[in-house]
Amino acid sequence: MHSEFELIDRWFKRMSSRADVLLGVGDDAALLQVPPGQQLAVTVDTLVAGVHFPHETDAVSIGHKSLAVNLSDLAAMGAEPAWVTLALTLPQADEDWLAGFSHGFLELAEACGVSLVGGDTTRGPLSITVQASGFVPDGLALRRSGARPGDALCVTGSLGDAGLGLAWLLGERTLPPKVGQAVRERLDRPAPRVAAGLALRGLASAAIDVSDGLAADLRHILQASGVGATVDVDALPLSEPVRTQSDARELALASGDDYELLFAVAPADEQETVARLQAQGLRCTRIGRVEADPGLRLTNADGSPYAAATPRGYDHFQESD
Amino acid sequence: MHSEFELIDRWFKRMSSRADVLLGVGDDAALLQVPPGQQLAVTVDTLVAGVHFPHETDAVSIGHKSLAVNLSDLAAMGAEPAWVTLALTLPQADEDWLAGFSHGFLELAEACGVSLVGGDTTRGPLSITVQASGFVPDGLALRRSGARPGDALCVTGSLGDAGLGLAWLLGERTLPPKVGQAVRERLDRPAPRVAAGLALRGLASAAIDVSDGLAADLRHILQASGVGATVDVDALPLSEPVRTQSDARELALASGDDYELLFAVAPADEQETVARLQAQGLRCTRIGRVEADPGLRLTNADGSPYAAATPRGYDHFQESD
Repeated sequence: MHSEFELIDRWFKRMSSRADVLLGVGDDAALLQVPPGQQLAVTVDTLVAGVHFPHETDAVSIGHKSLAVNLSDLAAMGAEPAWVTLALTLPQADEDWLAGFSHGFLELAEACGVSLVGGDTTRGPLSITVQASGFVPDGLALRRSGARPGDALCVTGSLGDAGLGLAWLLGERTLPPKVGQAVRERLDRPAPRVAAGLALRGLASAAIDVSDGLAADLRHILQASGVGATVDVDALPLSEPVRTQSDARELALASGDDYELLFAVAPADEQETVARLQAQGLRCTRIGRVEADPGLRLTNADGSPYAAATPRGYDHFQESD
Repeated sequence: MHSEFELIDRWFKRMSSRADVLLGVGDDAALLQVPPGQQLAVTVDTLVAGVHFPHETDAVSIGHKSLAVNLSDLAAMGAEPAWVTLALTLPQADEDWLAGFSHGFLELAEACGVSLVGGDTTRGPLSITVQASGFVPDGLALRRSGARPGDALCVTGSLGDAGLGLAWLLGERTLPPKVGQAVRERLDRPAPRVAAGLALRGLASAAIDVSDGLAADLRHILQASGVGATVDVDALPLSEPVRTQSDARELALASGDDYELLFAVAPADEQETVARLQAQGLRCTRIGRVEADPGLRLTNADGSPYAAATPRGYDHFQESD
C-alpha cells in the first residue's frame, strides 16, 4: 500500500484551496482562519460499506455521498461549508477505485466551495469518515430546539425517492429501468440543501436534515423543542415514481437518505420563507403544524387519523436487530 | 445495537464542556467559537484494530491512544487542544468495551482540557477516527518547513520504548514482566507532548511528532524545509530498557509510536528552549544539526558513519508489502 501521504497527495492535490486555509494537507495539522463574527459549525459522519451504502455502489457515488451527508448536516444548521477532513480506510490501494472516489468527492467539494484540509488513509475494511466545518454568523444558526406551537412545518424537495431507489436496487420493487436509475441517483448522489439552509437563516425556528426518515427526524425536532405536531400525510411532497407506489405515503414518512431539509417557521415568516426558497428554484411544501401537545399525530387530508404500520425511521438500512 | 445518539450520550455525556462550545453533541452540528487572534489547527487520524494497535489491546488503552495520537499532532504544531470529534465503528455495542474506551478517552480529554463536540457511531469492524482542533496565536504555529542550516535538532523524552513494547508484546523479545509492562505502556498509552509544544512556540524553527520513527519523521522536516542533517546516533535519548537491547540505537531510530516531539531550533534560541522545557520537567536532548546539504547522515559519537540496516519508519506495524 502506498503511504498515506502519497495517497492523499496523488488523488486530492488538484483540489483548490480557500484563502482561509493558511496551511493545508501535509503538516501535522492544517491551520485555518475563521472570519470574525462567524461561529464554526462542525459535524462528522462515517459511512461503512454494506451499512450506509450497498456494497455494489460505484466509487464516484461513494465519494459524493460521503461528503454530501456531512454538507447536509451543515445545511441543516444554516452554515456555509468551508473545510473538510477525510479519513479513508481501504482494503487495498485500488487505483481505479481511488480515481472514482476522489472524482465524486472533489466534484461536490468544488461545487460547494469546500477545501480538503486534512486526511488520513489506513488499511482495513472500507469505511469513510468525513468531518465538515462551516461558518454561521453569530446567533443565526438553525438549531433543532426552536420550534414553537403554531409554527408551520415545511420540507424541501420530495420524500421517499432514496428509499424507493434502495428497494429497486435490492430487487424488492420493479420499476422501468430509467425510473429506477433516477430514484437510485437520489440514493447514491444526494444533493445537500446548502442554499436552502442559507436562505432559512433568520427565518426558520428549527431545522434538521431528513436522513433517517421524515417521522424519525421530525421527532428529533419535537423532542429538542419540547413540542408536538400534526402532519398531513397527504401533503407530503412526492415525486412521480414514489406517487405511483401503493405505499407511497409510507415511503415518504419512513424511508431515509433523502437529505431534504425539514424546518419549522413562524406564521409571520412563512410567506417570506417560501418566496426565498422559490426564488432559488427550491421546492418547499407545508406538511403540518407545530402544537403544544407533545407527540406526533399523522392525519389524512380530511383530518382523520392516518392508519399505517407504525412509521419509524431506521438507523441503518441493513440493521438486523 | 443502540442508536448512535444513545451510545454517544450514555458514555460520553459526563464530559465537561468548554465555554467556547456554544452547542455540543446532539444537533446536526456543533457550534464553536474560535477566540480572536487565534488560528485553528486541525488534524485527523484513524486507528484500525490490528493495524494501529494489536487486537488484544485493552479498551481503556484504545480510548486513550485514539485521542493521544491526535493531541500529539496538535502539540507538534504548538497548538492548545480545544475540541475533538469521535467517529467510532464497532462490531457490536459491547457495554464493557464502551465503558473502558470512554474512560480512557475522557480521562485524557479532561487532563488536556478538551471537549468532545461531535460523534458518530456505526456498526462495522473496529475503527476509530478522531479529529482534534486547537488554537495557536496568529503566526506562532510550528510548521515542518522552517528548519535552517545551523539549527540544533532536539527531541523530547526517550525513543524506542514503544517499539520495544510492541516487540515484547508480540513475543519477539524477552523482558522481565515489569519492564515489559512499562515499555508496553509507552505503546498503549502515549503521553502527547502538549506542554512541550506550547513551550516551543516562538522558539522552534520546525517541529514534528515522532509517530513513524525518528529517521522517517526527521526526513519529513528535512524535505519540507529543503535542508539536510547529521544525527549522532549515540546521542539519541534511551530509557534503561531500550539501552540494554543489542539493537538499541536501531530501535530508537526506526521504531514508531513514541510520540515525542522532534524539533529544530536556532543556536541563539537553544539555551532558552532547553531551559523552558526543563522548567516543565521535560527532558530534551540535542541529537544533531541541520545542514544545507540535503539528506540525512547518521554518525557515531566519534563522527564516523553509523552502519546499520537502512533505518526507516513504517506506515503501520503490520504492513506486509
